[in-house]
Amino acid sequence: MIYFITGNKNKFEEVKSILPDVEQLDIDLPEIQEIDAKEIIKTKLTEAFNHADGEFIVEDTSLYFDCLKGLPGPLIKWFLQTIGNDGLAEIAEKLGNNKAEAKTIIGYAKNREEIYFFEGAIKGRIVNPKGETNFGWDPIFLPDGYEKTFAEMSREEKNEISMRRNALNKLSEFLRSGK
Amino acid sequence: MIYFITGNKNKFEEVKSILPDVEQLDIDLPEIQEIDAKEIIKTKLTEAFNHADGEFIVEDTSLYFDCLKGLPGPLIKWFLQTIGNDGLAEIAEKLGNNKAEAKTIIGYAKNREEIYFFEGAIKGRIVNPKGETNFGWDPIFLPDGYEKTFAEMSREEKNEISMRRNALNKLSEFLRSGK
Repeated sequence: MIYFITGNKNKFEEVKSILPDVEQLDIDLPEIQEIDAKEIIKTKLTEAFNHADGEFIVEDTSLYFDCLKGLPGPLIKWFLQTIGNDGLAEIAEKLGNNKAEAKTIIGYAKNREEIYFFEGAIKGRIVNPKGETNFGWDPIFLPDGYEKTFAEMSREEKNEISMRRNALNKLSEFLRSGK
Repeated sequence: MIYFITGNKNKFEEVKSILPDVEQLDIDLPEIQEIDAKEIIKTKLTEAFNHADGEFIVEDTSLYFDCLKGLPGPLIKWFLQTIGNDGLAEIAEKLGNNKAEAKTIIGYAKNREEIYFFEGAIKGRIVNPKGETNFGWDPIFLPDGYEKTFAEMSREEKNEISMRRNALNKLSEFLRSGK
């Protein structure tokens, strides 16, 4: 059995739509202090084997600002908690460079030794918050080639161009190819 | 025996000068992803009891920017690693508010249940890097009332006004008062 480890029902549904055999496992794994998303994922996957039997998937979706040389990255939750989307947009504006990348990294652990990573990334710009604010940094990310922030798109629209979808498709191919 | 957990010889010497009975314990404890320094310290102290017998001291010294509502705080190392002191100074300048606080929090665990915290803080301003750059963010922190950044001061000058010294003095008093 392959488990996708998350407490987020929406994320799990997106995974399930592409990998129907995957089940949700809602356990709380410690997040180490790191800005390398792969290291964070690897630590969680290794820890997962202490909680359950099976194969595991962990994902990290983060926002990387050009003007901050890759910050906030996986530290995005703390930026949201302190300065929020308004503060994030202000930094990009005041530093004079609003380019950013939204990136999903998926880690798949077949066992403790065999861990594989799959990435999907979308380039875009940081703008003043627009749209529903109920999903993290979605209101400030305007993907290149679109005129709506992630928060202004329907879930279908967003999934269509999403970095998570891209990463999941790569994992799906990998699993189908016989591992 | 009371152990001060650190890999940093300079920090240990400062502690030892105020608490002569304390010994150094150089073990690597996991740093959880958090911006609440007390939570980070508490997790480390709790974990320490799985490594050794005794009483433990863990400290966190971080820099809190007014313009970032408290960031970077304990995330300072990642800011230094990515944008560096130049980038940090630029943020304070461009956001138009260079006020900051350098704060040390010391956690002392007598046992797993009894954990005490002691704080020392110094207000100051973020300036363009000046002085030796071999100690983290010292070159950009100008304490209020002084005309030198921490990096431009001798170790003695710095210890004299240091937030770590203040916190240590509080811990020292607490220990002398019979716990």
